[in-house]
Amino acid sequence: MKEQVQKTFEALFALEDIREVLREALPIGPDPGEEQAIREGVARVRAILDDLEAGTGSPEVTKIVGSLDIRNREEACINIQPIQAAGRLTLEARKALIAYGDGYSTCDACRKPFRLDKITKPPIAAFHEDLARFLNMDTVRAVPGARRGFQAVTSTLVKPGDPVIVSSLAHYTEFLAVEGAGGVVKEVPVSRQNLITPDAVAEKIEDVRRETGKNPALAMIDHVDYQFGNVHDVAGIAKIARQYDIPFLLNGAYTVGVMPVDGKAIGADFVVGSGHKSMASVAPSGVLAMTDEWASKVLRTTAMVGDMTSRKFGIKEVEMLGCTLMGGTLLSMMASFPTVKERTLRWDEEVKKSNYCIDTLLSISGSRVLSEYPRKHTLTKVDTTGSFDTVARTHKRRGFYFSDELSQRGIVGEFAGATRTWKLNTYGLSRKQIRYLADAFTEIAEKYDLPITK
Amino acid sequence: MKEQVQKTFEALFALEDIREVLREALPIGPDPGEEQAIREGVARVRAILDDLEAGTGSPEVTKIVGSLDIRNREEACINIQPIQAAGRLTLEARKALIAYGDGYSTCDACRKPFRLDKITKPPIAAFHEDLARFLNMDTVRAVPGARRGFQAVTSTLVKPGDPVIVSSLAHYTEFLAVEGAGGVVKEVPVSRQNLITPDAVAEKIEDVRRETGKNPALAMIDHVDYQFGNVHDVAGIAKIARQYDIPFLLNGAYTVGVMPVDGKAIGADFVVGSGHKSMASVAPSGVLAMTDEWASKVLRTTAMVGDMTSRKFGIKEVEMLGCTLMGGTLLSMMASFPTVKERTLRWDEEVKKSNYCIDTLLSISGSRVLSEYPRKHTLTKVDTTGSFDTVARTHKRRGFYFSDELSQRGIVGEFAGATRTWKLNTYGLSRKQIRYLADAFTEIAEKYDLPITK
Repeated sequence: MKEQVQKTFEALFALEDIREVLREALPIGPDPGEEQAIREGVARVRAILDDLEAGTGSPEVTKIVGSLDIRNREEACINIQPIQAAGRLTLEARKALIAYGDGYSTCDACRKPFRLDKITKPPIAAFHEDLARFLNMDTVRAVPGARRGFQAVTSTLVKPGDPVIVSSLAHYTEFLAVEGAGGVVKEVPVSRQNLITPDAVAEKIEDVRRETGKNPALAMIDHVDYQFGNVHDVAGIAKIARQYDIPFLLNGAYTVGVMPVDGKAIGADFVVGSGHKSMASVAPSGVLAMTDEWASKVLRTTAMVGDMTSRKFGIKEVEMLGCTLMGGTLLSMMASFPTVKERTLRWDEEVKKSNYCIDTLLSISGSRVLSEYPRKHTLTKVDTTGSFDTVARTHKRRGFYFSDELSQRGIVGEFAGATRTWKLNTYGLSRKQIRYLADAFTEIAEKYDLPITK
Repeated sequence: MKEQVQKTFEALFALEDIREVLREALPIGPDPGEEQAIREGVARVRAILDDLEAGTGSPEVTKIVGSLDIRNREEACINIQPIQAAGRLTLEARKALIAYGDGYSTCDACRKPFRLDKITKPPIAAFHEDLARFLNMDTVRAVPGARRGFQAVTSTLVKPGDPVIVSSLAHYTEFLAVEGAGGVVKEVPVSRQNLITPDAVAEKIEDVRRETGKNPALAMIDHVDYQFGNVHDVAGIAKIARQYDIPFLLNGAYTVGVMPVDGKAIGADFVVGSGHKSMASVAPSGVLAMTDEWASKVLRTTAMVGDMTSRKFGIKEVEMLGCTLMGGTLLSMMASFPTVKERTLRWDEEVKKSNYCIDTLLSISGSRVLSEYPRKHTLTKVDTTGSFDTVARTHKRRGFYFSDELSQRGIVGEFAGATRTWKLNTYGLSRKQIRYLADAFTEIAEKYDLPITK
């Protein structure tokens, strides 16, 4: 396996060497020296393919440049890293990236009015429309990460001193977006089940109004939080926000691109998603969607006029800073999008696989799940203090024994050394891979004589 | 030529198909069905290689997904597009992108204190140090485009109503960054040579102080402007800014990564560069460098505390919104960096090639160069109203005849249809390619009986 992975990278790299020769050649074709280089390159690829097919050969290339290793964990391993699972590129995105990696690759056919989301070749304008439809929102912009979506909204709606309602499980980037605008976060406490309820939001709003004399400028709630992967009643929360006339931003970093998200049905004013977290895209990328009501405010175009030249750049949007993702990031989002749309329809299946994995972990006596259970998401926080950690207490490698056991089985992405509370994300693993993963947990338990129930 | 380019893409894509099989396989290796798929994949690559070598075969793959074409203009053509030249990926960046395209690919070994620029594997922390040294500045951060560098600085230094000194040739993103912070741009007029002089800056500062009663909060000047590609006396301007105690931001979007830029020698408080414009990187990417004096302000860490949870995210920087380029964008910058460093030392050679090309254009009677001449940069604005445009006036394709002639010769990137004033950028073209380009201009002139001097 490792050999095949290695040789696949080597073949890809050797083809890039050939591509470089073509880049250096004239449009009329390679000169004799270049033809020779191409022939030699092809011979090298052929030799690598022989090894790839036979599963033989030792690594010829270990560094890309300097000390930079080849990253092969998605090919050689099963990766359960909590934030990486749904950002893994699709096959289509990887191909698009080969073709569109260069700097301003989106800008070949940029014509009036000179804005990224208006470009029709490649079909960027159509993608924006599709994406709005997908989220059932009126307008979308691609942004460099969900955080830039938060920032554009807080920068527009939040004035210095304004309170902003967030979840007690809010991601730190929401804190930063509020802070940048001069606002103050006001956290909604979680229930005993680690859920944010509409009632708790209403209570918090009342508290804030009483305490500050102000209506919160914004409510920003994680659809699924990063700590437990719990699914919060965002439609109920949106309703409360609306009652208080507070704009509601749905942080869909863990939902947009993996499960169905219908912005209007939820009642969101803004929906923010993450490309590199949940839309199989190159970082930094994300989406900011909104209703028509807000577009003229958050997507306001520049009003600045040069005092000497009278220059105006009227079409450019201030919060977007003009164009946003002018290359491989956007093209990876676009190329993944058909698959991403389709995969959200198979979310039930992903949840089933998540539960299968967690049930297996729970069958190891002493293991607990800290997230809501049965699982409604693929990101889960578990507590193995009563199971795997009991071994760590006396093992000479401490908690690292567990990482060792996993990595010997080709499983990576757990927090190295952690055997008490830790997180995993099974998104996108096939049934076969899920079984393998679950079996690995059982095997490790058996190896260390941890009792297994059921 | 076209066939070889096409077959190289097809081979790369076919290898990605194989890679996808490996991604779906278990860590213990492919099952019989997967082995079969790999064998078939290898056979397909071999067949493509046969065509590649022989320069034969018709295109088997024309769309990546949906209506998305393969972008092959860097392989099949000579691209003189003004903003794209120095953002073209290096061979090393393309390889890095193959390995690190996936979402959060940088984050495998993220450990305390959990911030991108502190990660040591891949060597991101070391890259940040190298980059600071390269620019001779104290601290750098990778950012999603130069514009995000401007924004971080204006958002910190510019208060509502503050005047900000910019060039009359300033890029629109500087306007937007000032506007976002609530400031007002104050343009320095250009000299007859379209240069921003220190004297003009001093005069403008005096005017602004008189007119507004305020000292400008910031001076932000393009090292080389996007309109003419002229090199401005930024060291002289920095000195003036210092005399007035105005922080000076150097917009190096057209210089950082192509010519030597020494921030301290210039006297800049901030140096901003663009990854996708001049550092052979995936968009959106860039660099914000500063002196120690400013780091604690612009890179201030969050002070926000959760009111319910008492959560603090102390290491995260507000203006950076925490981590910035968590994947392929950053890795492309890192992989290109050794080449980028080295190529800035060969800037003289680039300027020579630029002048060779422009001299040839000027030898076609009636052609003019609107940029400073002799050229000091590879981006040039020319005026061919007196030469190529005289043909357009009666040609049935109007100005498009010129684009047709260029594209028949495999030259792309001019503004289609423009035969009066237009821009080109020769950065990175080899001597052979420059000669080919210059010869093409001469050939077209001869074809249409335009007189050629010398």
